[in-house]
Amino acid sequence: MADKTEIRVGIVGLGTVGGGTATVLTENAAIIASRAFPIRLAAVADIDTTRARDFLDKLGQKSTILYNDWRQMIDDPTIDIVVETIGGINLAREVISAALIAGKTVVTANKDLLAVHGGELLRIAGEHENDLFFEASVAGGIPVIQAVKEALAGNRIQSIMGILNGTTNFILTRMSEDGTDFAEALAEAQALGYAEADPTADVEGWDAARKIAILSSIAFNSRVTYDMVPCEGITKISKWDMIYAKEFGYVIKMVGIARHQGCAEEGFIEARVHPLMLPANHPLATVRDSYNAVFIEGNAVEKTMFYGRGAGALPTGSAIVGDIIQAARNIMHNSKARLGCTCHLDLPVLPLDEVVSKYYIRVSVYDRVGVFASLSAALRDSNVSIDAAMQKRRISADQAEIVIITHKVRHADILAALSIIENLDCTCEVCGYIRVENEES
Amino acid sequence: MADKTEIRVGIVGLGTVGGGTATVLTENAAIIASRAFPIRLAAVADIDTTRARDFLDKLGQKSTILYNDWRQMIDDPTIDIVVETIGGINLAREVISAALIAGKTVVTANKDLLAVHGGELLRIAGEHENDLFFEASVAGGIPVIQAVKEALAGNRIQSIMGILNGTTNFILTRMSEDGTDFAEALAEAQALGYAEADPTADVEGWDAARKIAILSSIAFNSRVTYDMVPCEGITKISKWDMIYAKEFGYVIKMVGIARHQGCAEEGFIEARVHPLMLPANHPLATVRDSYNAVFIEGNAVEKTMFYGRGAGALPTGSAIVGDIIQAARNIMHNSKARLGCTCHLDLPVLPLDEVVSKYYIRVSVYDRVGVFASLSAALRDSNVSIDAAMQKRRISADQAEIVIITHKVRHADILAALSIIENLDCTCEVCGYIRVENEES
Repeated sequence: MADKTEIRVGIVGLGTVGGGTATVLTENAAIIASRAFPIRLAAVADIDTTRARDFLDKLGQKSTILYNDWRQMIDDPTIDIVVETIGGINLAREVISAALIAGKTVVTANKDLLAVHGGELLRIAGEHENDLFFEASVAGGIPVIQAVKEALAGNRIQSIMGILNGTTNFILTRMSEDGTDFAEALAEAQALGYAEADPTADVEGWDAARKIAILSSIAFNSRVTYDMVPCEGITKISKWDMIYAKEFGYVIKMVGIARHQGCAEEGFIEARVHPLMLPANHPLATVRDSYNAVFIEGNAVEKTMFYGRGAGALPTGSAIVGDIIQAARNIMHNSKARLGCTCHLDLPVLPLDEVVSKYYIRVSVYDRVGVFASLSAALRDSNVSIDAAMQKRRISADQAEIVIITHKVRHADILAALSIIENLDCTCEVCGYIRVENEES
Repeated sequence: MADKTEIRVGIVGLGTVGGGTATVLTENAAIIASRAFPIRLAAVADIDTTRARDFLDKLGQKSTILYNDWRQMIDDPTIDIVVETIGGINLAREVISAALIAGKTVVTANKDLLAVHGGELLRIAGEHENDLFFEASVAGGIPVIQAVKEALAGNRIQSIMGILNGTTNFILTRMSEDGTDFAEALAEAQALGYAEADPTADVEGWDAARKIAILSSIAFNSRVTYDMVPCEGITKISKWDMIYAKEFGYVIKMVGIARHQGCAEEGFIEARVHPLMLPANHPLATVRDSYNAVFIEGNAVEKTMFYGRGAGALPTGSAIVGDIIQAARNIMHNSKARLGCTCHLDLPVLPLDEVVSKYYIRVSVYDRVGVFASLSAALRDSNVSIDAAMQKRRISADQAEIVIITHKVRHADILAALSIIENLDCTCEVCGYIRVENEES
């Protein structure tokens, strides 16, 4: 055991997540000490020292040292663990590197940074025999990273499907349950504080893509970065898609998907984010409102799912404090760096064009003889085989809506077919497509 | 780092779970070695050495040493980790104690043993600075023990509700979805191998009680043993209860419940197993067939749920191998016993009579004037306040069925009321009661 009576934690950036971490460390201090070791919120670095002092005073943390420059915290030799909660990429990268080089353990919730520079930071941690923990970077309070890294380490992970963004899940739940349109549901999410003024990173899937990059890297032991994860957003989904999905027994969810195809240490990875129609009795289909969930299949554990709050000060603080406790154990037992970067493979990522799925397609057409024949021919000419095709509502006197469900086809072939359909005389508009997952769980 | 090039595992008892563990260790050997260390299935102890040799030969584990006496394995100084998968109490207790005393790490799936003698075995492990891991003892492949012990350690855990028995969940799912009676659904479960010839331990809740005892002990840092967990079974639930539950928007599930009331290190524990009506949109209500799930609320993480296979050779093997990998890390990093027994409190368990719930009561009555008045008076005289009362189907010309939903009341008061109702002239039969959880999630 190390010759210490307490572990001293410093938080860089006392915003929502940093504040949540400070709150959990304070309110649950006695229970944490009894389960592990006394863990003290020894220092905070924040550019707004007045606001930070106020916050700490309200928590009763009057003896916490306050630095207005994070470098002072790194230079403080009494700090064992640095929690980076400033977010963003450049400054956070500098803070984490400096802390690791200075011999401190680092805990972060920074998905933006890890999805781009995770490999570099884990290498620095390894070189300095330090730990870098990041449970809170994926799915907030849900302890899925430790599960994949440790408890499920005996499995070849076959696939991960995650509802990894609370904003889009809230919007899709409202659209599905209340029959609202996307714009209306987005406005409600913004009014409730679930969506930001500029919701692009959420609704276009960028946020979920960062999380799926981090999860894939761990699950498949091969580095997947943000730029390798193609995204399709939810802005084009209409209330009609919701209605038709329900008729077919499906629920539309925004999911991050990562799959490993091939055996053991070979093969390739699929990683992407897009809306997906899931059978209504799939465990992910029942995840409502702003909740997150990660559905994992392994060759031993079979199907498993982890559900909870994907954001929020206290749930994210819960994940960070869980990491702090693990970090404290490693410090006390002189076993830092017992689990470093696990990306020892370099598996290729399958290009999106090659990914195979079932598709739902919605097209509005001029209602005349031969429409089905024209659409069918366009699909056939692009190697797209049809599972079901049906006319839905009549839009106006001479326009109707047709929905087609395909068999499993390559993405490039669907795009080719839609481009032909778009130019048919009978086509008024290709309203959109949504991939369909038809395996029940 | 320890001076070892591989970790040597011995399995005692090559039945379903032992065989599943051997299979996972063999089939995923390369991926396990690349993630952690080479982990070899070095030895097996089994009284039926012929069958065990056959099994190992089929796996291609020709160099695994076979002992017909487990003591030989304990005496083998090259074995680092002993996996106990013989089950039952007395012999398993002897094997685990001897292995720990001999300096070996132990991994077990034995809930029967841990729910009774867990404290004693963890004390022996601690005295000999060894690890005792038991992820597989609760909810099979679902990594809920590590989550509660580590990732959620920054939380005061407020409550745990678990579908912890696949057999009863399968039976209740069939009754709910197909309208079958208990006996019919049990027969189907037996035909499919989900239920044993003597299903008592499952249908009466004993199996789930062992798991809730283990989970409570970890979550609340206070030892809860099997004898402290009262059980009510599912044998009295009828298809009519299923029909009425659905009408009210509920689903009936067999749950293990553990709650901590009071603050931080004080208060008391509730622990029990019984059928429960859950709102249809509660995450546990959507857990179907033989799946298990554990729903946990903490004061930081809020609501979270862990879902998956609660039994089966490979899912249970997944949990055991996850423990083996963690054990191997502790051996390699000279940090065994970094996390021992966590029961440093001695909280009282609330007697079942004092537990407060909403109740659903079903009574068949002789259809005459004043029935409602008689029932209402009986409930009032026992301090039971009514939320709703309604007449349901007519059973025969002069008999009808009445369903009553109460407000939250003490269990002792419900029992007193039912005993009065049973003796009323208008009562034909008190068909039963089921507790109702009315908080949505």
